[in-house]
Amino acid sequence: MISPHPFDRAVRVIPLSDARFRGETLPEYSNFAGQFGGITAATLLKAALDQPAARGTPVSLTVNYTAAVQPSAFELTVRAIRLGRTLQHWAIEMTQGAIVVASAIAALGQRAESWAHAPLAPPQAPPPDTILPLETAGARGWVQQYDFRFIKGSIAALHDQPPLSAPGDAQSLLWIRHTYPRLLDFPGLACLSDAFFVRMIQVRNTFPAMATVSLTTHFHADQALLDSQGDQALLCAVDSRVFRGHFHDQTADLWSSDGHLLATSHQMVWFAQ
Amino acid sequence: MISPHPFDRAVRVIPLSDARFRGETLPEYSNFAGQFGGITAATLLKAALDQPAARGTPVSLTVNYTAAVQPSAFELTVRAIRLGRTLQHWAIEMTQGAIVVASAIAALGQRAESWAHAPLAPPQAPPPDTILPLETAGARGWVQQYDFRFIKGSIAALHDQPPLSAPGDAQSLLWIRHTYPRLLDFPGLACLSDAFFVRMIQVRNTFPAMATVSLTTHFHADQALLDSQGDQALLCAVDSRVFRGHFHDQTADLWSSDGHLLATSHQMVWFAQ
Repeated sequence: MISPHPFDRAVRVIPLSDARFRGETLPEYSNFAGQFGGITAATLLKAALDQPAARGTPVSLTVNYTAAVQPSAFELTVRAIRLGRTLQHWAIEMTQGAIVVASAIAALGQRAESWAHAPLAPPQAPPPDTILPLETAGARGWVQQYDFRFIKGSIAALHDQPPLSAPGDAQSLLWIRHTYPRLLDFPGLACLSDAFFVRMIQVRNTFPAMATVSLTTHFHADQALLDSQGDQALLCAVDSRVFRGHFHDQTADLWSSDGHLLATSHQMVWFAQ
Repeated sequence: MISPHPFDRAVRVIPLSDARFRGETLPEYSNFAGQFGGITAATLLKAALDQPAARGTPVSLTVNYTAAVQPSAFELTVRAIRLGRTLQHWAIEMTQGAIVVASAIAALGQRAESWAHAPLAPPQAPPPDTILPLETAGARGWVQQYDFRFIKGSIAALHDQPPLSAPGDAQSLLWIRHTYPRLLDFPGLACLSDAFFVRMIQVRNTFPAMATVSLTTHFHADQALLDSQGDQALLCAVDSRVFRGHFHDQTADLWSSDGHLLATSHQMVWFAQ
């Protein structure tokens, strides 16, 4: 018997009623404080997509991380805000005891052929198999779940270095895929949209307490694009615009291996100092 | 007696209970189908900020536009998701009758001096008073509320022209301020973050049916930055990455007149063909 992929075990929930579900965090997706935000996003999105009334594929997902997800059981509540013919809107909340730990809104849409145009060209990059993967042995849970191959802005360059005296470049360009191969689906893409080292580390090489406040993922792919991507690595460009007053932004473009923009993500991160 | 600014009349609501409010749309902020999305975002954000328990200034706001806001009365429901010491999360919904027309999550945060860094430099632009404003006489409601001064990618260049045979440049750069001066506040900034002509018009010069599905605004300013901006024009850079399968993205950077990034917005737009 083949065990389910760690990702599929992490996002699995069991129904308590039509609108309530129960799940458990996995050590494989742990982070500094609580669970990795990407897997929380994936779990919330999957809960909406699995509703019998759900139609269409994700257009947007915003997750507000309202408290650290503790290593334990959690419950989900799923609510249809509005179910239109072309678009659906769902609200999903994750609770642990009396505390809401994450609150999300997702829009699902009917995609079909339309006028199309891609003003943004994919970044140039050597193929992933020509680049050494980041060493992740001993890293915290979620980091070991991914194979990172940096073309630019590798976190490895910072290892054992002192804090930077002047801010480093906020940009990274990397190939990323699951350590254990897995076919790309929308929850997997939602998770990947948060699977980047926080830019704060990148630009300072310090590790103040920090946490994502809100993550928005915009989906540009249909099921056919995901199917053709399969389990290949995604090319991801990550950047920040501004760090100010204990908050900074972080943006990522996630490209298919053949140059289609699959998703973009935008987040606000709180940092302690 | 000085009449309140149209903006302040549009976002004003009266309490029905602690958590429910009633307001009315204004013709000054009408759009093709229903109310202008920016004023809806501002109304929802203001309702959260006006709660007695609200602390801090906006960090992020996501509004999902779940149905067209009809020209009539509406109700708001405001709910605290989680009230932490550093961060608060609020959910706000707008209804007309039994229909949810907009659903939002807002994060408020305590801003203070911290490590700061601005990797993205402001765009170069001539001062606004050297540029002729866009002629908005006869335009639909909300367009007349703003003074647009285009440095690049003006919608005026498209007037009376046939649809473009090849996609035009998606980028615009413009100064924007209220037609009737108004001091910048956070609801005003939320509204401005949607005050751009949809890129679909820009790249095709056609007007298919279209609607914003979800708008996320990330705030980078504190109250002091807004105060020093006053009623001056904001410099805004607008762009899109991809149009595909009846949806496209749109991103805007909103800069103060002296080169501070005040907010960024990211939206997904549905278009009919």
